[in-house]
Amino acid sequence: MVHGVIMAGGSGTRFWPHSRRNRPKQLLNISGQKTMIQATVDRIAPLIPHERIVVIAGASYIDELKNQLPELSEDQVLAEPVGRNTAPCIALAAYKLRNRDPDAIMAVLPADHVVGKEREFLEALKVAVDTVLTHGEHLLTFGIVPNRPETGYGYIRVGEPLSGSGPKTVYKVSQFVEKPDLPTAESYLASGEYMWNSGMFVWKAADIITSLDRHLPDLSCAIREISSFLGTAEEAEAIKRAYDGIEPISIDNGVMEKADNVLCLPIDVDWNDVGCWASLECVWDSDGGGNTIRGQVVSLQSRDCIVSSPHKLATLIGVKNLIVVDTPDALMICRKDRAQDVKKLQEILKDRGYEHLL
Amino acid sequence: MVHGVIMAGGSGTRFWPHSRRNRPKQLLNISGQKTMIQATVDRIAPLIPHERIVVIAGASYIDELKNQLPELSEDQVLAEPVGRNTAPCIALAAYKLRNRDPDAIMAVLPADHVVGKEREFLEALKVAVDTVLTHGEHLLTFGIVPNRPETGYGYIRVGEPLSGSGPKTVYKVSQFVEKPDLPTAESYLASGEYMWNSGMFVWKAADIITSLDRHLPDLSCAIREISSFLGTAEEAEAIKRAYDGIEPISIDNGVMEKADNVLCLPIDVDWNDVGCWASLECVWDSDGGGNTIRGQVVSLQSRDCIVSSPHKLATLIGVKNLIVVDTPDALMICRKDRAQDVKKLQEILKDRGYEHLL
Repeated sequence: MVHGVIMAGGSGTRFWPHSRRNRPKQLLNISGQKTMIQATVDRIAPLIPHERIVVIAGASYIDELKNQLPELSEDQVLAEPVGRNTAPCIALAAYKLRNRDPDAIMAVLPADHVVGKEREFLEALKVAVDTVLTHGEHLLTFGIVPNRPETGYGYIRVGEPLSGSGPKTVYKVSQFVEKPDLPTAESYLASGEYMWNSGMFVWKAADIITSLDRHLPDLSCAIREISSFLGTAEEAEAIKRAYDGIEPISIDNGVMEKADNVLCLPIDVDWNDVGCWASLECVWDSDGGGNTIRGQVVSLQSRDCIVSSPHKLATLIGVKNLIVVDTPDALMICRKDRAQDVKKLQEILKDRGYEHLL
Repeated sequence: MVHGVIMAGGSGTRFWPHSRRNRPKQLLNISGQKTMIQATVDRIAPLIPHERIVVIAGASYIDELKNQLPELSEDQVLAEPVGRNTAPCIALAAYKLRNRDPDAIMAVLPADHVVGKEREFLEALKVAVDTVLTHGEHLLTFGIVPNRPETGYGYIRVGEPLSGSGPKTVYKVSQFVEKPDLPTAESYLASGEYMWNSGMFVWKAADIITSLDRHLPDLSCAIREISSFLGTAEEAEAIKRAYDGIEPISIDNGVMEKADNVLCLPIDVDWNDVGCWASLECVWDSDGGGNTIRGQVVSLQSRDCIVSSPHKLATLIGVKNLIVVDTPDALMICRKDRAQDVKKLQEILKDRGYEHLL
């Protein structure tokens, strides 16, 4: 049986002031009508109904998350006392699901990605599940077919096809590579052999546990020790105990890059990880004058701005390449190529006594 | 007896979105604790008590103005149905005061100027009144001693001293000149003969009426015809009747530039006409990092910005030369050298259905 494992642990710093510690990106409506986590759950519903979803998220905003997903039972939401990156989160879900169903398949999906082509994504998810069912002991990762020489993502180099050919061909992974510089990214794009590392995976719970045992034995052991408490009244205390001794590490660094049984299914589904304000140029509407806007925006000879003003009129005169984000209690104006400094700004705000606005 | 004539007819377009049609600049707190019109009235109070003040202002915001100046009686506030520039406004006040007191002296002051050195200003006002008392039939204008080659003001070229010398010397005016280009402004500054035209005047009501009769006879006649209704129940109707047929014209263009009996008293009182957002760099505090701010502003590597955010935190990252104005229902972000286009923006807002925000 295939289960959806939704990783909802993001901290909400990069979309400040729209996102806050207690209202991270995945709990916000960034595109469309739903919050990102609602969209993630609903997107896979035709294949994975609500009762087979597990969500792992930060304890500080777990109540709001449960409000947004009233269809999930208490047992389907796991709270992390602190973020420890993706490997511990995946280990928790893997042990929880394997204890319940030794043949459980996990579709691991971040809660804060945008997928434009939902039908194509679902078809790919089916192919991935079938592949894992028929090719035991493999870990499958979705690779995004790149459409530009992006330097902000890691890449996956695909090798031999697993079998057959065609648009839904699954490949053996030959290599994971870190974020490249621009010339390297351009050569990746030209080669056709490199996909963006999406951070979305399909595997059997038992197989990822085997891989965790091999590549991250301390982590695997720590979670195994507390796994019998998952779903009990002692769950929160048990997770806290395990997490106290766990080093943060991503599943990519900890497992995928080391494993030799990784498959990649390239997909072309209008995907966006919405990693910072600047990425919204690919997600939000244009105002017809070169600005990307949400809310009421009137501009005079201004272009290439990204403006979020859902609560009131925002006006621009003669400006360009700005990110403007208005919220009821904080306003941010940022040069577009400085979007990564939103984090640095938050350090300053902390020092200046504005912690309540973070 | 000297009377204060406060011209409060500004329309409030240049400080949008802080100023609005019904809340023009003179009714706002732009610097310090009081609104600009309150500061104007209080500034001259040691010389001209409240009971000898007359305010002329637009009918659309007259109620708010009266709220701000509860010490004035109904009879001291004249409402203009539409703005017709300064000459009609001054004519109204002149006839009103002369009818009451044939020897009335008028100190004509715009309601929306900042004066840093209030004591020096009061001393100059005394000198001006004494001059007009002892040199009948002269019109006196205050000239601001320039401290930079400003191209945004008209200038007054002073001629012979009227009498004596020293810091309070009054000069005959040799010429009024329009806003100069930069090289001309630089030569004016170097010469020491040119003062900024402040738009502040002292004269006898009877003398300005004589000058109006000579240089703007139609206007003078129109106001004379209705002057007996001023202070009566028919005042509003009478002013409306007169204003319907009056061409808008400034007292500078209509009288001062043509008259040969004009005196100038140069003053150095840290004066600012606060003509647009950019002028606030001379009025507001600096944040110590090169930005001019009001409200709560935190900036990261940003400079030369003017930020008004009285209601919430505003943050800047990597930007420069911006004007940022946040209000509860409208936000404006404007390149600093485009401050004059705030008016153009308002035309667009009108077309787009945002008239309620003007």
